Amino acid sequence: MILEKINKPNDIKKLDPIEYNQLAYEIRQFLIENISKTGGHLASNLGVVELTMALHIVFNLPQDKLIWDVGHQSYTHKILTGRKDLFGGLRKFGGMSGFPKRNESDYDAFDTGHSSTSISAGLGYACARDVRKQHYDVISVIGDGALTGGMAYEALNNASRVKGSFIIVLNDNTMSISKNVGGVSEMLSNIRSSDSYYDLKDSVANTLYKLPNGDKLVESIKKKKSNLKQIIFPGQMFESMGISYLGPVNGHDIDKLIKIFRIAKRIDKPVLVHVVTQKGHGYRPAERNPSKFHGIAPFDIKTGELLKKSDKPTYSDVFSDEICELAKNDDKIAAITAAMPDGTGLAKFARWFPERFYDVGIAEEHAVTFSAGLAAGGLKPVFAVYSSFLQRAFDQILHDVCIQQLHVVFAIDRAGLVGSDGETHQGIFDLSFLNCIPNMTIFAPKDGEELKLGLRFGLQDYNGPFAIRYPRGEVTDAFDDFETMPVVYGKAEMIHKGSEIALVAVGSMVETACEVRKILKEKGLDVTVVNERFIKPIDAGMIHKLSFDHKLIVTMEENVGLGGFGDTVCQYADDSQLDVKVLNIALPDDYVEHGNVSILKKEEGIDAAGVADRVLSFYTNI
Amino acid sequence: MILEKINKPNDIKKLDPIEYNQLAYEIRQFLIENISKTGGHLASNLGVVELTMALHIVFNLPQDKLIWDVGHQSYTHKILTGRKDLFGGLRKFGGMSGFPKRNESDYDAFDTGHSSTSISAGLGYACARDVRKQHYDVISVIGDGALTGGMAYEALNNASRVKGSFIIVLNDNTMSISKNVGGVSEMLSNIRSSDSYYDLKDSVANTLYKLPNGDKLVESIKKKKSNLKQIIFPGQMFESMGISYLGPVNGHDIDKLIKIFRIAKRIDKPVLVHVVTQKGHGYRPAERNPSKFHGIAPFDIKTGELLKKSDKPTYSDVFSDEICELAKNDDKIAAITAAMPDGTGLAKFARWFPERFYDVGIAEEHAVTFSAGLAAGGLKPVFAVYSSFLQRAFDQILHDVCIQQLHVVFAIDRAGLVGSDGETHQGIFDLSFLNCIPNMTIFAPKDGEELKLGLRFGLQDYNGPFAIRYPRGEVTDAFDDFETMPVVYGKAEMIHKGSEIALVAVGSMVETACEVRKILKEKGLDVTVVNERFIKPIDAGMIHKLSFDHKLIVTMEENVGLGGFGDTVCQYADDSQLDVKVLNIALPDDYVEHGNVSILKKEEGIDAAGVADRVLSFYTNI
Repeated sequence: MILEKINKPNDIKKLDPIEYNQLAYEIRQFLIENISKTGGHLASNLGVVELTMALHIVFNLPQDKLIWDVGHQSYTHKILTGRKDLFGGLRKFGGMSGFPKRNESDYDAFDTGHSSTSISAGLGYACARDVRKQHYDVISVIGDGALTGGMAYEALNNASRVKGSFIIVLNDNTMSISKNVGGVSEMLSNIRSSDSYYDLKDSVANTLYKLPNGDKLVESIKKKKSNLKQIIFPGQMFESMGISYLGPVNGHDIDKLIKIFRIAKRIDKPVLVHVVTQKGHGYRPAERNPSKFHGIAPFDIKTGELLKKSDKPTYSDVFSDEICELAKNDDKIAAITAAMPDGTGLAKFARWFPERFYDVGIAEEHAVTFSAGLAAGGLKPVFAVYSSFLQRAFDQILHDVCIQQLHVVFAIDRAGLVGSDGETHQGIFDLSFLNCIPNMTIFAPKDGEELKLGLRFGLQDYNGPFAIRYPRGEVTDAFDDFETMPVVYGKAEMIHKGSEIALVAVGSMVETACEVRKILKEKGLDVTVVNERFIKPIDAGMIHKLSFDHKLIVTMEENVGLGGFGDTVCQYADDSQLDVKVLNIALPDDYVEHGNVSILKKEEGIDAAGVADRVLSFYTNI
Repeated sequence: MILEKINKPNDIKKLDPIEYNQLAYEIRQFLIENISKTGGHLASNLGVVELTMALHIVFNLPQDKLIWDVGHQSYTHKILTGRKDLFGGLRKFGGMSGFPKRNESDYDAFDTGHSSTSISAGLGYACARDVRKQHYDVISVIGDGALTGGMAYEALNNASRVKGSFIIVLNDNTMSISKNVGGVSEMLSNIRSSDSYYDLKDSVANTLYKLPNGDKLVESIKKKKSNLKQIIFPGQMFESMGISYLGPVNGHDIDKLIKIFRIAKRIDKPVLVHVVTQKGHGYRPAERNPSKFHGIAPFDIKTGELLKKSDKPTYSDVFSDEICELAKNDDKIAAITAAMPDGTGLAKFARWFPERFYDVGIAEEHAVTFSAGLAAGGLKPVFAVYSSFLQRAFDQILHDVCIQQLHVVFAIDRAGLVGSDGETHQGIFDLSFLNCIPNMTIFAPKDGEELKLGLRFGLQDYNGPFAIRYPRGEVTDAFDDFETMPVVYGKAEMIHKGSEIALVAVGSMVETACEVRKILKEKGLDVTVVNERFIKPIDAGMIHKLSFDHKLIVTMEENVGLGGFGDTVCQYADDSQLDVKVLNIALPDDYVEHGNVSILKKEEGIDAAGVADRVLSFYTNI
C-alpha cells in the first residue's frame, strides 16, 4: 500500500513518480470505502484525485496558498495533509469537516462552502503577498459550474491587475452538481471538443512556455495581430480578460498535470490552467450518475444503492409534486433553479414543463432578478433554492422584487439546521434577512400538508413577494390526525388552547412545541401551542389575545434569534405595552458546526427537553 | 423649438428626421438648465440623448420593453414619455423620481437603481413573452461600468438560451461613475481603438445583416472555422457566450444608431449592440470632469461651479483624512472600493498609497471576498462602500469574512436616509442585515470626531470583522464642546444622565436625542441620553443599569425597526426580565421615497418633534 506512506503533509513528495498512479488508485478506494460508510461528497472528490496530487507535488504547501472553490472536493487534499485517520468522523459532530477549514489545518488557506469565491480570495492573497513583498504561489481551483457564478467573473475581471503570479485551475467536468448550463459552458465545450485546438495547444503554446523566456515569447506573439492567436490560444475569453490560458489538459493524466502546473508556476502573471476531469472517475456507479453521488448517504459499494431507503417523502418531494399539480392548471407558473434541479425537487417540473423551467446555473442573484422580470412579464415564477444560497440574492430580493411588489414565490428548502454540511450551509438566517425587507411575506409550514396549502396560497390567493421556508429531510407525520385550518393571510393556527404559557412556534418548531407541551403537562402545566404560519406579517391579533390569558409567550424558531420571529414579537409586545412576558427560543448568535441535526438541536438548546427546561426556569422567575 | 412638439409619448415619431439633431441639442440644453437648478444626474444623461431618441424612434413603447440599467440615465426617456413638465420637481419629495418607476409611467418597464440588473430583468421579460406566445421586443441598456458586475455576466451566460429576440445595448463610455477598470474594460477598449475592426465591422457584418436572410448568412459564416471570424466579429467574448455582436457604433450619430437598432430588431436571437458614447457630451465642464457631474447639486451653467459651497467637511471627508493618517503609520492598511473612489473619499488614499489601493469596479461581492483574502494574507483591508450597495455582499460578509473572523473593516457611508436618490439608495437596512451575522461588530459614531475614534479602534485595537456606519453629508458640530470618551469595546457613552426616561440612540440619532431632550425638558422631564456606539454587541450592562432608575428606555436609530438595534434591546430586556418598558423609534417597515432628508425624517416620524410626541404619549400610558 502506497497510501500507508502518506501520513503527514508533503509525504507525497517523497514518493517515486512511478508510484503516483497506484496512489491515485488507492486514494479512490479509500474514498469509496470511507464515504460508503459515513456518507459525504463522492463524485467531485473522485474527479480531482490526480489534480490534487499534482498540485501537492508541484507546489510548496502551506507556504503556497491552495484555495478550493466550494470545497467539497477537498478530501484528497485532506488525505495528503495528515488527516487520513479522521475520515471515520467525516462530517460528524465533533469530527472532521467536509470542507476546508483554517481552524482544522494550516494547509487549508481559506474556508469555503458556497460557490465562486475562490478567485476573489486567491486574488486577495496574491495582492497581500505583493504588498508585503513576500514570495509564494497562490492557486485557486474552481469548477466550471462555479464559473457560472457572477462573483467568479468579477474576480476574473480583476485578475489581470495582479502583477505577480496567480494560478487559476479550471476543473472542468461539464457539471455543477447537475449538468452545467449557459454560454460559457458551451464555449468550454467547444474548446474541449476541438481536437485540433487540443493538439495544437499542446504542441505550440505549451511548448513555447517551456522555452527560456517562453512567457515573453508568448506575449510577443499575442501582441501581433495575427489570426494564428485564435488557434494557439483557444481560451480567448480568458485571454481577452488579460489572463493567460493553458490547456486543456487531461485531468487524469498525472504526468501531464505535473508538467502543466510546472509551466504555470513559471509564468509571472495570472494564468488559467484548463483541466478536464470526469466527476466520479474510477467508480462506475458515480461515473454513470454523478449527480446522485454528489452528496450521498451511506451506500453499498457493489451496487451503488443507498443502505437505508425511506418510504417517507421529503419536503422537497412534497414541493415537487405540488408545484407540478398547480402548474397543470395554471400555465403561468414557471420554475427557476440555480443549478439544483434535483436537490430542490424541480427535476419533475423540468420534465413536465420544459418550456417554463429555467436552470440558470450557479447564479442566485440573476435567478432572483430574472424571476422579477418573469413576473413583470406576466408569469408566476417560483424560485426554488436552499436557504443558505438565497443569502447571495439578498439585494435582488430587496431591490428588484420587493420594491416593485412583484409576484415572485421563493420556495426556500433546507431552512433551519441542515446537519453535516455545517456552518456554511445551515439555513438559519433567512427569517432574519427576509424579515427586514418591506413588502415581503414569510410563511413556514409545520408539515408537508401545510407546505402544499402554503404554496397554493402563495401562487393562487396572493399577489406579491411570498417566501415559504421548510426544512431539509422527511416530512413529519406528527400532525397527520390534526385537522389543518385553511390558510388565511397573516393568521396563525391554534393547535392547543391551554393557559398560563403560550408556545408560539414557527415551522419545524411546531412539532417541538407539542413535545414541550407534553413535558410540561407532566409538570402540571397545560400550555397553549400556536402554529404561527406567517412570520411576516406576524399575527399581531393572536399575540394580543394570548396576552390576555397568558403570563408568558414563548416564541420558537429554528433561526438565529437576532432579527427573527421572536424579535418581532418582543417589539410588538413592547410597543403595544402588552401585559405579558416574552421569552425567545432561537439559535444563539453564532455559526453552527456540522453534525447530526438532532445532536445539534440538543447542543443549541432548541430540542424539546432543552426548551422545556428554559421555559420552566423563566416561568418560575416571573 | 422642436422640444415643444414633444409632449406625449411617441411624439418623437412624428418628427421629420432632419429635426433629430436639433432636438438632441434642445434636450441637452433642457437637461443642463433644469439640473443646474434642481441638481441630479447630468453627465450620464448627456451621454445618452441620441441613444435614447433612436430607441424611441425604432421601437414601439410601451409594448416593447425598455429597461435602463441603474436608471439614472433615464432623463431623456422621461422627456420623451410625457414627463418634461415634471423636471422642476425632479428628485424632490412628492416630485418625479430620478430613476425609472413602474408606478410613475407605463413606459418604465422595470424599476432600477442598483447596477447590473437590466439583462436579468430583460431576460425575464423575453422568456415570459415566449412562454405566453406574445410578440414584443425587449431592450436592456447597460453601461460598460455596470458590465463589471457579476450579475450582468450571470445574465449574459443565460442569454444565449432565449429563443426569440433580445437586445442588449452596451452603452460604452469607458466609465462607471469613475474611470472603468478591469480586463473586460480593456477588451472593450481594444475593440474601440482598433480602427480596422471598426471599419471592417461596418462594412462586413453590419452589411451582411442588412441582406435578406442576413442573420442566417452570418450564422453560417460563424459556423465555418475561419479565422476571418475574429476580424468580422470583434466582440468575441460575447460571441463565445452565444450572443451576436453588432458595433461599435458612434453613440452621438443618430442616423447610425437608428440603422443599427433596425438591424438588431430584425435579428431573432440575443444580440448585443455596442454603442460608444461620451459622458457629459455637449457640455464642456461635464465632458472634462464627468465624475464631478455624475450626480451634482445645483450649479452655475457658465462656470460649472456649485452654487452653494460649504466649508464643513462631510463624513466621507473625515473618513478620507483619517484612513490616510492611519495608513501613514501602518503599511498593512489597504483600501478597497467598488467603483467609488470619489464618493467614498478614497481618492486621496489612492494617490497616497496606490500600491495598497484597489478599485475593483462595480463588484461588491468580489470586493468583500477579495478583502477577506487580503486579510487572510496579512493586510488590514478597509472596504469603503455605500450602505445600500453593501446589500449586494450580504452572503460574502456572512460566509467569507465572519465565519473565519477575518479582520476586515467595513466603512459604510451613506447609512440612514440619503435623500433624493430615493428608495433604492436609502441606507436603512444595514443595521438589520449586519446584526444577524455572527462575529460581526457594528459601530456608529455620533459625529466626525467619533468616526475617527471608531475607525482607529477598528483598525488598531480590534481584530475581527468591524463595521462602522455613518451618514451622508456634513458632519454635525453639535458635540464640538462635548468631551468624547475613549472607545471601549461594546461600551456605550453617557451623554446626559437624567431620570425616568432614557433615550438610547445610534449614530445620527444621538443629536436628535439631544434635541428631544430639550423639548422634553420644557415639559418638565429631565431625560437621560446615551450614545450607544456599539450596536453589536449592544451595551447590555448599560441597558441593565438604566432599567434600575428609568421607567422607559427609548431606542432610536435611522434604520428599519425590524432586526435593528431596538429589536435587540427589546429581546434583551424581555429575556432578562428587566423591569422597564421599551419603545423603539426607527423607520417603519417600508421603503422610503426620494426627497430632502429633513422632510423625510419628519414624514417618517423620526425628527426630534415627532420622536418627542411619541415618547410623551407612550410614557403617559405606562
